[in-house]
Amino acid sequence: MTTPLDKLREYGYELPMPKAPVATYVPVTRVGNIVYVSGQISMGENGVVTGLLGENMNVVQGGNAAELAAINMLSQVVHTAGVDLEKLKKVVKLTVFVASAPDFTEQHLVANGVSNLLVGVLGDKGKHARSAVGVAALPFGAAVEVEGIFEVEE
Amino acid sequence: MTTPLDKLREYGYELPMPKAPVATYVPVTRVGNIVYVSGQISMGENGVVTGLLGENMNVVQGGNAAELAAINMLSQVVHTAGVDLEKLKKVVKLTVFVASAPDFTEQHLVANGVSNLLVGVLGDKGKHARSAVGVAALPFGAAVEVEGIFEVEE
Amino acid sequence: MTTPLDKLREYGYELPMPKAPVATYVPVTRVGNIVYVSGQISMGENGVVTGLLGENMNVVQGGNAAELAAINMLSQVVHTAGVDLEKLKKVVKLTVFVASAPDFTEQHLVANGVSNLLVGVLGDKGKHARSAVGVAALPFGAAVEVEGIFEVEE
Repeated sequence: MTTPLDKLREYGYELPMPKAPVATYVPVTRVGNIVYVSGQISMGENGVVTGLLGENMNVVQGGNAAELAAINMLSQVVHTAGVDLEKLKKVVKLTVFVASAPDFTEQHLVANGVSNLLVGVLGDKGKHARSAVGVAALPFGAAVEVEGIFEVEE
Repeated sequence: MTTPLDKLREYGYELPMPKAPVATYVPVTRVGNIVYVSGQISMGENGVVTGLLGENMNVVQGGNAAELAAINMLSQVVHTAGVDLEKLKKVVKLTVFVASAPDFTEQHLVANGVSNLLVGVLGDKGKHARSAVGVAALPFGAAVEVEGIFEVEE
Repeated sequence: MTTPLDKLREYGYELPMPKAPVATYVPVTRVGNIVYVSGQISMGENGVVTGLLGENMNVVQGGNAAELAAINMLSQVVHTAGVDLEKLKKVVKLTVFVASAPDFTEQHLVANGVSNLLVGVLGDKGKHARSAVGVAALPFGAAVEVEGIFEVEE
């Protein structure tokens, strides 16, 4: 049987070990069967993927950056919250923040980098509500930040 | 008895059929008795209401755009989530994203277009917690995007 | 025994009486044991702390502004929602919106003004998930706005 982690590998990703915040907040909290994941930025093996959409980054590059943020979010769900992706009940809600010049209006296409990966890896239970918005700037100059709410089994 | 839909008509609105996202995410998700609605933009019968507050749109125009976003949100609650507005328990929390030039600081007045409509139509159960923030840009150049959390009957 | 309010005083704060919104929305809503607090801006005894990080405000000033927003949020939790801080179960999730010039990328450091205060005052139950993002502008020209989700005892 193909697992979510197998499907992630088809996308070319191994789930990395998550970064702990260098601060007093925490990467995940849980209330009942709901897990909240702190905003995860576009960061890969070579560091933070920086950029401002509409100025020095195009939609394809933005979508790739968004995918990295999604991977980091999944990593927090699995490794920090200790949720087996096969037992995840639902991706409930995402907010995708895209660093944007004022005339860039395709945040939804960038955010599809997150959405397509989650649905590709998790199937129907990866189908989430979502907002995509263009922000002035993000921590460390990241191009994309994504936060998420997940439902897990009791 | 005056229903919420009657009151909407007094505001001049018929609830439109909702737009399905052209993507892999979904317009609404539900966990228990909580419904999450994806970000809905200011879009009316004549297409997306675009604009940047403080640059080419004033507070009144922004408030009208916000009202359209609210209508689209209600449409998702009713038509996609299948919630009868008379049985809605509560509008819990909204985030109103307002496309803003850096010197525009009346996002709260624009967001009142959403808040006043919901309270006008739904009464006390329309009273919600809210954040209003000014973002750099929104999908399709929309002036306003609103996302919401709703409590429904079990 | 040192209470959270004692610890707040060590930070130099008395919890102010909260401001009611001059609008139709409300400062807090509650669903079950979850309290949602509307976006609270950086406002102190001398009015709104305005500013745009990276343009006319530095990280230290931004962190102080963030602390004020956190105080106003706690004030809503205690005075409006009627939650005794000693009986608060958990700070679940915060979103910290930082008014930012496009080249300012230290929103996380500004947001630490919120996070450090909450963990300093509330200890482990103050440890929250968090997103920090840089927005174009905020209501009344505020430098910082924070919204929060809290778990309270049944």
